[in-house]
Parts: sequence; structure tokens; C-alpha cells
Amino acid sequence: MKKLLLFLAVYLTIPLFAQRGKIDIPNLKGYMTLKCDFHMHSVFSDGLVWPTVRVGEAYREGLDAISITDHIEYRPHKDNIIASHNRSGEIAQSTAKSMGIIYIKGSEITRNMPPGHLNAIFLTDSEPLDKPEYMDALLAAKAQNAFIFWNHPGWDAQQPDTTRWWPEHTKLLEQGIIQGIEIVNNGNYYPEAHRWCLEKKLTMIGNSDVHTPMQIFTSGQHRPMTLVFASNATSEAIHEALKERRTAVYNDEYIIGEEKYLKELFENAVEITVSKAENSARVTFRNKSDLIFYLRKTSHDPRLVYFRNVTVAPYIIKPQSVQTITVRLNNGAKGGDVNFRVENFLVQPSQGMNYTVKI
Amino acid sequence: MKKLLLFLAVYLTIPLFAQRGKIDIPNLKGYMTLKCDFHMHSVFSDGLVWPTVRVGEAYREGLDAISITDHIEYRPHKDNIIASHNRSGEIAQSTAKSMGIIYIKGSEITRNMPPGHLNAIFLTDSEPLDKPEYMDALLAAKAQNAFIFWNHPGWDAQQPDTTRWWPEHTKLLEQGIIQGIEIVNNGNYYPEAHRWCLEKKLTMIGNSDVHTPMQIFTSGQHRPMTLVFASNATSEAIHEALKERRTAVYNDEYIIGEEKYLKELFENAVEITVSKAENSARVTFRNKSDLIFYLRKTSHDPRLVYFRNVTVAPYIIKPQSVQTITVRLNNGAKGGDVNFRVENFLVQPSQGMNYTVKI
Amino acid sequence: MKKLLLFLAVYLTIPLFAQRGKIDIPNLKGYMTLKCDFHMHSVFSDGLVWPTVRVGEAYREGLDAISITDHIEYRPHKDNIIASHNRSGEIAQSTAKSMGIIYIKGSEITRNMPPGHLNAIFLTDSEPLDKPEYMDALLAAKAQNAFIFWNHPGWDAQQPDTTRWWPEHTKLLEQGIIQGIEIVNNGNYYPEAHRWCLEKKLTMIGNSDVHTPMQIFTSGQHRPMTLVFASNATSEAIHEALKERRTAVYNDEYIIGEEKYLKELFENAVEITVSKAENSARVTFRNKSDLIFYLRKTSHDPRLVYFRNVTVAPYIIKPQSVQTITVRLNNGAKGGDVNFRVENFLVQPSQGMNYTVKI
Amino acid sequence: MKKLLLFLAVYLTIPLFAQRGKIDIPNLKGYMTLKCDFHMHSVFSDGLVWPTVRVGEAYREGLDAISITDHIEYRPHKDNIIASHNRSGEIAQSTAKSMGIIYIKGSEITRNMPPGHLNAIFLTDSEPLDKPEYMDALLAAKAQNAFIFWNHPGWDAQQPDTTRWWPEHTKLLEQGIIQGIEIVNNGNYYPEAHRWCLEKKLTMIGNSDVHTPMQIFTSGQHRPMTLVFASNATSEAIHEALKERRTAVYNDEYIIGEEKYLKELFENAVEITVSKAENSARVTFRNKSDLIFYLRKTSHDPRLVYFRNVTVAPYIIKPQSVQTITVRLNNGAKGGDVNFRVENFLVQPSQGMNYTVKI
Repeated sequence: MKKLLLFLAVYLTIPLFAQRGKIDIPNLKGYMTLKCDFHMHSVFSDGLVWPTVRVGEAYREGLDAISITDHIEYRPHKDNIIASHNRSGEIAQSTAKSMGIIYIKGSEITRNMPPGHLNAIFLTDSEPLDKPEYMDALLAAKAQNAFIFWNHPGWDAQQPDTTRWWPEHTKLLEQGIIQGIEIVNNGNYYPEAHRWCLEKKLTMIGNSDVHTPMQIFTSGQHRPMTLVFASNATSEAIHEALKERRTAVYNDEYIIGEEKYLKELFENAVEITVSKAENSARVTFRNKSDLIFYLRKTSHDPRLVYFRNVTVAPYIIKPQSVQTITVRLNNGAKGGDVNFRVENFLVQPSQGMNYTVKI
Repeated sequence: MKKLLLFLAVYLTIPLFAQRGKIDIPNLKGYMTLKCDFHMHSVFSDGLVWPTVRVGEAYREGLDAISITDHIEYRPHKDNIIASHNRSGEIAQSTAKSMGIIYIKGSEITRNMPPGHLNAIFLTDSEPLDKPEYMDALLAAKAQNAFIFWNHPGWDAQQPDTTRWWPEHTKLLEQGIIQGIEIVNNGNYYPEAHRWCLEKKLTMIGNSDVHTPMQIFTSGQHRPMTLVFASNATSEAIHEALKERRTAVYNDEYIIGEEKYLKELFENAVEITVSKAENSARVTFRNKSDLIFYLRKTSHDPRLVYFRNVTVAPYIIKPQSVQTITVRLNNGAKGGDVNFRVENFLVQPSQGMNYTVKI
Repeated sequence: MKKLLLFLAVYLTIPLFAQRGKIDIPNLKGYMTLKCDFHMHSVFSDGLVWPTVRVGEAYREGLDAISITDHIEYRPHKDNIIASHNRSGEIAQSTAKSMGIIYIKGSEITRNMPPGHLNAIFLTDSEPLDKPEYMDALLAAKAQNAFIFWNHPGWDAQQPDTTRWWPEHTKLLEQGIIQGIEIVNNGNYYPEAHRWCLEKKLTMIGNSDVHTPMQIFTSGQHRPMTLVFASNATSEAIHEALKERRTAVYNDEYIIGEEKYLKELFENAVEITVSKAENSARVTFRNKSDLIFYLRKTSHDPRLVYFRNVTVAPYIIKPQSVQTITVRLNNGAKGGDVNFRVENFLVQPSQGMNYTVKI
Repeated sequence: MKKLLLFLAVYLTIPLFAQRGKIDIPNLKGYMTLKCDFHMHSVFSDGLVWPTVRVGEAYREGLDAISITDHIEYRPHKDNIIASHNRSGEIAQSTAKSMGIIYIKGSEITRNMPPGHLNAIFLTDSEPLDKPEYMDALLAAKAQNAFIFWNHPGWDAQQPDTTRWWPEHTKLLEQGIIQGIEIVNNGNYYPEAHRWCLEKKLTMIGNSDVHTPMQIFTSGQHRPMTLVFASNATSEAIHEALKERRTAVYNDEYIIGEEKYLKELFENAVEITVSKAENSARVTFRNKSDLIFYLRKTSHDPRLVYFRNVTVAPYIIKPQSVQTITVRLNNGAKGGDVNFRVENFLVQPSQGMNYTVKI
């Protein structure tokens, strides 16, 4: 019967997961930009795949770090799946190691609103989180120095009318228990949560919350993820970065985060050069990243004429491209400010990032 | 040598043009929606293809009617191409007939600004348009009952700073010579020209102005075109529709036109049904067209809750799809208005069309 | 906590499985052609997905019937998954019913060679198959009127040198226990097994044996499957068809089976019409199916000239296409036989099906 | 009117031709592998595009050298296009220079069979080829040291029954006028012409003979072309290589040519490494090219077992891939020859190239 052991090894290396993916997003000064998904499920709670599949998917999509966060309280397969709350992580961890993916142990504390669902990651043992009272569960996580964030704060099923902040969340914040919020979950963006992160100094998180097998992304597509600006590619450095709020969220074509990080990300992704002539200047955008940028003109010296004819659609800098525009300098203007907003770089709720190129 | 005559026939039927394309856009009450491109070039002016290629491209892309509008005054290949201004149309016409495409004879009157470039279509003879004075050329076209429109009014090379209306255009308008304007040319949209069409009762036109071989479009993509709402699929009916301003412009994912047409187009494309429950209603959008719709919530009774979480990105109704949303009815609301703007249906310059679904 | 029950229902209906697939293969006279996969795995043995995922995949790919055949003897997840051998089928069955997929209960009896692995399907209870002696397991299946077939008879791990028929298989055959063989498993074709099926009157089976999430197929691609020619779309009719050897195997671009079925399949897929002229004839192939056909000329009256220039590559009839060839009739030939082989319709091991079109 | 000169320059740089293509085929020792198309048409004969379009297409597809070979005798647009036979080449040449494409001046001498159509390339002046007698035309080309080859020798319209060699061709060969033959034209392969090239020491040529705008190729697809093994990337080196028969033809997935070149091409494309164990060996194929390889086992020591289960379909080495197979060494075999045929590398008419990997 020994030969049967061949099975699993074989099936994990099939073409479905064979090729390492790659998403080209620049690093920041002193920090690597790590692509992370801190919220997903396996059959050990209400997911539909074995934990190793999550590792294979992350490998295929070019992620650096993941956390499977099965529900503590919701285990619909529990009649057949008998396991400690640590089990899905244990299974994933060894596969992750062999594939060069950073695995971070986590669990989802799953309650009605308030306080809703919260993820605790960087756990060492999930078992003590299985408590009748949610505060006991959170304190058990905190005792392990976990990083805790509020999941999908605007989920219809729990917040049918508005994305509301409850008194219970104030309490969790004041006690230092909640450190971050998912401003993006499964493709949904919560602008209210974005504002809370800015006002209350919480870490911005974006995750897939995937339950089924992950879809196959075509070139340019990707799952929702958290970009973590970490001093190196280790679990410890990610933990430190999360605590220091060094993150941004990458959802669809949007990057969402603090202006200081998004500005540096934009400048490291797009090399901008200006060459002046008599009555005009040429501005070249050299985008060395897989990111796209939607630029829309903002108020400016009317003697500078640029981005004409793109009144409805914004000016688009495509991934991995070199593009040049002409800026006309009329009525004796010798230079000035080319002002625009990067519409898909959200530095405030639903608002793009202003930027100026000096001529 | 007779066998050589086989050549051309063979090469026109190769797979490149083999399959008739199809773009699914609904008709209006009493009118067929014809897909037309009234501005393109062949080697007989500064284009790079033989006229029959334009017919093959139109066939492949599912267009109903085209006009090759070679420049009267600009013929860079004239050292080698010796022909009357009618020649490209003659060549295209017989191929068009065999392929079931409506061919409309046209020419481009090509001058510095003002008045810039103007297309005259439904001509019977282009030769009389070859005149030193532009007004003589336009009058010669008018004498043939041509339909005349102003091309790419915001073209950088001619209008470097703004999309300007010149006194000469006022004169042409007052004399009934200009009847329409390209508000879209080669992918560029001119909102100023859109406003002029609304204010001055001019026909909105959108064309490709293609010079090279047309690109191959992937599913869902298409060239810029004019949608003509014509009483039947004939050249005469198109002419009548243009004179009566029964058009819209289809550019990228945008439809641009008068609200009365766009509203009917939307309603004929998307069947909307409402089913009410105790505290909520379900609204189903059945999109039977190839059009996409971007909906964004506008001001409304706050007791109706809908389109939550789509604060940045609009709510999207995909082509050929059936999608359902839930509208919550809070605080005793028994019904109300679900207000939104169809953002990519421009009924005013750069502005979407408001719409209400009654609950 | 009740709201949590929403989860699973929601996640099963996400876009990944949202759209019913369709593979266009014609029926035979008196029989429907059902697309079936009788060999796949879930987490209940060594697969990596929850059983419902298999149903969703089948729905997406346009299959009519499936069987999850988890190993009786090999359950690598058994430390955590505690269940009867019937459990994966029970879970799949209710989802299958809601999605209109025929579910057939099965198990894989998993032994070293001889006799290797065997699938028993149409079981009512898998528990009695859990026996130390393989013959006892097979007899337990037989007692339930199961249909039993030998899996991947040429699997390297068990048959490293040749695809060998062992004395044990003779015994199983003589006792009426083995009724079919996988001549295709997971994309691998076993020509020896194909020969055995023809010689020993065994049913030809082809399956995916999938363990991971199934890949996403692009248009024209499909998983290996068994085509079952059944009197109607029920589990009972499939069972009857399998017993009467009314099957073919669809692997990649190949159809493998008995000539009587393949000939009818070809004729129902491709309508062939001949129109004669003086010295030539035109043969039109109207392929109304999603199948492709590779035709290669075989020996024929040299006065008939056809398929010229296709000496290396065969003549290809593409899916859903209409294609016409010319057959020249030289030296006074008034007609004759256009002979060719359909190379990808295997009616003997590794050999295509001969066919003649009469002129 | 000066501004109109902007037109052509602008339209030649549009996205259709914006990006330089790349096809990865290895060089040979001492020779670069240049991708060439020596047969295409423009509006100056019966083609449907302006000559510059052919340069743009070559740029987009990654070709190194092209020749537009308009018919001398067949000019269906001659009522409107008045030009010397040199004109299309003059127009193409300057665009080619600016785009880094090698342009080779050529013409097609176009006669009924015999001798059919012949291309003369490396001409300095096409005018003297316009002669009533074909032999005079050929001698005029020869007087300019042109390289002359026979086009599409099996073209149905001229050779309806067989690909026949006529006495006239013997004469042309004996006089040193014909130096090569198109064994591939527009996707059609002529095995008889392949044999003639081998027997009569003629250069193998493959060309597109494109008349319409060239289709857009998806990744992995390409037009028919001649691979020229030249000492450097110049017109002179290509001429020398053609005279010395240093070519191969690349059509679809086939490479056709002399065994000495194809063997080296295979070895430079695929790095093969063998690692031996007790009773088996592992053979790794590292394909660093865009070529695909279809391998089929040939007769061999039966104690070496390899390529099992691939009896119908060949073993495929995909482009830019690394693949490993196991060779079992049975019954005490310590090593031996792994024999196979590279089926798509034709070294004889319709026959693949034999190759052996030593274990």
C-alpha cells in the first residue's frame, strides 16, 4: 500500500499551480512591498478547499504572505471534520515553506454585530480563542501578541443600512484590541472604514475572504490584497509593519492608503521627465510597474494647456509603458505647474491623490 | 494570362474578412438603430489601404453603413495615384453591394482653421468640390443636397488651446451649410462640440477617421461610430435621419446623444422588473444588449438603501446579463424612488443620464 | 448566530460556478449523448476540494452526470475527516439535484497491482466495500448491482514497463466482475486497454480522476470524459448503457470507441453534400458540433484529385463551420470514392476511422 | 496647408504597429538566424495596402528582412496607379530603414505554367524585367545578380493535378537561373518541391504571399517565413546565405530544411541533460526558444522504457519550458539510446528528424 503515498505529492505539483506568478509593484525606500492576503477559508471552517490549495493559489498569483483564518465559531462541516482550530494552519504551513510563501497563523472570531467578525493573526495557538464571550476570545488573542482587525465592517448581512461604528468598537479601540480594519473585503470597498482608519490611526487592510477555489486571473487582474511595506520578507517584519500602519490596499485598479506611501509608490512606479521647448514642454511618463494610473486635470494656470480632449475619460498611464504628452505654454508662460489627480490612488475616502509636475 | 483574374477575388474572401460581425444594440420605436462610420480614408488620399478593405472591415465589425471620405485637397500619393475624386467611392461601392453594406459617397474638404475640415456625404459627384475657395467647395456639395458636418473640431493641430467656435462657423451655420459636428473622432470626445450640438440643433456624429488597416477588435471592443435611428436600412433613410438629428455616438463604453433617444435606448436594452417584499424590494436588470451600463446613486429618500459599498466604482450592468439588487425599505417606507445616473450615457457634455426606478 | 447560515449558500453561487457550460455533441438515433465523468476525488479521500465543488465544476463545464469515487482504503486526511464512505456522495447529491446534474454514487477500491484500482459505481452503500480482501470488496459492490471498471490500467506507478493484463484480471472478467476499463485517465490514453475492450467486450471509459480544483477550460477545451449513449437522461439509463457498452471516450481532440457509434456520431455532426460539375465536384462539410475532425487521404482512384498540399498536416474540419473542397475528376472519371481517414476518431488502438464520400 | 504634412507621420506611428515583435529562435554557430519574408504585395500590383504597411507589419511581428514583390505583368489597379516597377520598393525602403528592418528590392515575374511565377530579389532596377518573353525578363534579373526562385509550384490554379516539374524548369535550372523554390507559400507546403530542393541543390524558401492587411497573430502564431542563417544582419549576408542554401522554412509549427541545420537548431533550442539512477534515468529538456517540438518514439532497445501512454499524441516540448521524463532501465540495462523522431522538423518530404539521446 506504500505506493499510494505518491498521490498527494503528485497532485500538488500539477500545472494548476505550477508557475510562480508575479505582480510588479515597486518597493519604497527602506521597505519591500509585500503582497499579502490575511483572510481566507478552508474546509476546516466554511471554505471549500483543503488548506494546501490556498498556498498553491498564492504561489500562482505571486503573493508573498497569506493567512488562512478559519472561523472559530462557525464550522458547518464539523460533523465530519474533527480538528483543533490550529489544524488548517499546520497543514498549510509546511506546504507554504516548501513553496517560499510566508505563512501567518490566524483565526476569525465570528460574532453578530456588534462587534461582528474580527481576524486575529500572528497567533501561536488558536484554541484559547474558543470562548463564549467575544471579549475573552479577543483577550486570548491579545495575550499571544496577535494583530487584530475588524472584518468587512460594511457587510450587508450585519450592517444592512450604513457602515456603522458601534460603542463596542470604541471600547475595543480604547483598549488597544482593534488595530486595523478591512477597508476592502472580497472586492467591496468601505469608504467609512477608510475614514476611520485615517482618523483613529488604524491599519488599512484589504483581503479576499475567499471560500471557493480561487478564480484564475487573466493578466492584469488580481485578488484584493494588502500591500505591506516591510523591512524584509519575514513574518516578523510584516507584523511590525502592520503595527506601524505601513500598508496600502490593492483592489481592482485602486490603491488605497496614506498619502505618504501612495506618493512614494507613484514616484517609484512612474519615472517622469520634462523636456522644454520654446512654447511647450513634453512630459514623459515611464511606468515600470504593473499598476495603471488614471490622471484627471485639476485647477491650474490656464496658460498651461494639457490633457485636452480627455474630459470624460481620464488620461491613462498603462502598465509597463512609456507615454509622452505635450504641455503648451501660452501667453508668455515660461513654465508652471501641471496639476492633476491620480484618481485611482485613494488618499481620502473615495478621493484621489493630487500631484503636480513642475515645468 | 486570364487566370490571373482569379487573384483579387480570392484574396478578398480570405478569413480576415470572412465572418460577419455583430453588435447588439436595440432599435427604437419606429426606427432601426444602424451602426455607421462616415469618415475614413484610403490610398486615394492619405489612407494606407485600398478602398475595398474598408468594406471588408465594416463587414467584419458588423457595421451597416460607411463612407470613405478621401481628402479633396490632400493627396500625398498623387505622384502615383491618378484618379478623379469619385474613384475610391466607385471601387468601394460595388464591393459594398456584394457584402450587404450601405455605401454612402463622401469627400473631406480639407482646410486650415477656420473652418478646418468638413465632410460632405451623400454626394453624387465629388469633382465639383475641388475649388480654391472653401465656400465654393461647400456650396458645390450643398448643390448636390449633401449632408455636411465639421470634423474633429478640437483637433490639437488646428485648435491648439481650446475647442473654439469661429465666426466662420456661425456663418456656415446661418447659411444652413453645416448640419452636424463630430463630437467624437478617432476616440477623442469634444464636450464643447457636444454642447454646440445641443444649443444649435446640430447632428451629433462620431467616426473613426481611420487611415491604417483597422485594428482587430476583441469581443466587446468597437470602433467609434454614429448610431443612426433610421426608418429603414437604406441610404435615403440614413440621410433623412441625419437631417432630423436622429443619432447618437458610440465611443468606447460611452453613448452620447439627446436624452430622448438615450432613455429609450436604455429602456429597450435593459428590462427592469421590481418585486416587493415586506421591508425590501428586489430590482432585476435584464440587459439584452452588448452595451454596458455604469450606474451611480444620486440623491434619494434615505430610507431606501441600495448600491451600498459601491462608492468609488459605479454599479455595473454587464452586457447580455441578468443581475439583481436588493433595495431595503427602512423606517416604514413602503416604496419610493431608486435614483441613479447612467454615467456612460452622456446627455449633456461630460454628464450622465439620470434615471429613476419606482418601487 | 443564525445569520451565519447565509454563508455557504452565498459562496456556492459565486461567479466561479455561475454559468452553465455547453459542449455540442450530437445524439445518436434513439439515444442521447450524455457527458459523464465517473472518477474524481474530494477531501474525503485524497482530493483537495469539498464534494460540492465537483458539482459546481460539472455544471460550469456542461457535464450531465458525475460520480465522486473517493478511495475506500486511502484516506490521507483521516486524522481530521471522520466519515462513512458514503458521506462525500451524500453531500454532493443534494447540490447536484439542485443544479440539474445526475449524481451517481461510487467508490474506488484501491489496491496494489494486481488488480490495481477499480471503481464501483451505482452503489447504494459504500461501507460494505471496506474489506481486507479485494475480492470481498468487489463482491460486496457486485451484490449491490454496481458497475465495476478497472482504473488507469497503464499507470506508471503500478505498471512501470507495459500495460499488462494479469491473471487476476482474467479471473475478474470470467466472474463477470469487471465490466469496463478506463482507456483514458487524466489525459493518458492506453491503447492496450483499448484493444482489450474490443476483444473482451468491455465498456470503454474515460475520466478525469481530478484531485485538485479543476482547471478553467478555455473555449474548445474540456476534461476527459465518457460519452454515454443513453435512452434518456437518468441514472438508470446511464447504468443500462454502460452495461450494454454504449459509450465512447472524449479526450482532447480524440473520440475513441466502437466504429458503429463513431460513424453515426460523425455523420450526425457533419452534414456532407456533393455537387457535381463537368470535371469536378464540390464537397461541403457542414459541422454543426463542437468537435474537430482531422481527415487524411487514403488510397483511392488516382483520377480523383483532392486534399492537395495537405501532405503533412491533415485536412481539418473546424467546430461549428461550413467548409467546401474541390475534387477534380480527371481522365474521364465521372465519379468515384473520396476516401479518407478521420484520424482523431479512433476505432482501433491508435488508429483512425476510414470513411468514404461517394461522388 | 503646411500642417497637413503632419498626417502621414502621425498615422504610421499609431498603436497598430507600435510594438516591436519578437520570435525567439536560436542562432547557429557562426550564423544569425534571420526571419525573412520574400514575397508580398502592395497596391502597386494586386495587394490591398500601401507599401509602408508591409514594413509596419514586419516590425510588429519581429521579422528581420522583407521584400515586396509586386507583379510585373499583373497590375489590376493600373488605371489609377501609375508608377515604375521600382516604386513600391522605394516607398517601403525609407520606412524600413527608420524601423530597423532590412529591405530587399524584388519583383514577381508572373506567367502561365510553365514556368509559372518566379520572384527575383536583390534587384537594383525592376524596369528591365518588363519584357514580353519570360526568359528575357529572367535574364534581365540575372544580369543584376538577382536571386531567383519559383513561387508556389503546386498552386492549384496552375498545377491542378500534381506539383509537376516541367522541361522548362530543367532548362532554367541548367542555366543557373532558378536558385530556389517556395516549398511553403501562404501556409501550403509542397512536399514534391521539398524533394526537388534536396535533389537538385536548390534553396528552400517559405513566404506569406500576403495581399490583404496581415492578420494579427496571437502569441505563438506567426506568418510563413524563411529562416536565413546569415553571417550578419545585412542584405549582403542574406544574399550570400540564400546562394549557399543556408535556410530553413518556418510554417505553422513546422521547421523544414536540411538535417544539418535542423539538428543544430534543435540542439541550440533545447538543452538536454541526463541524470542516471540505479534502474532509471531522468532526461530534462530545457527549451529556451519559442519553438514547439513533437517527439515520437522510434525503434529502440526494449529494455529502455520511455514516452509511455503517448501512443497517439506525440510527446510535446512546449515553448520556453523545462520538462523532465523518466527512462526506465530494465533487465539489467545500464544505459542505451533513447530514440525518437522530432515530427515537426521535416528533413525529408513529410518526414521528421530522427534524434537520439544517449543514456
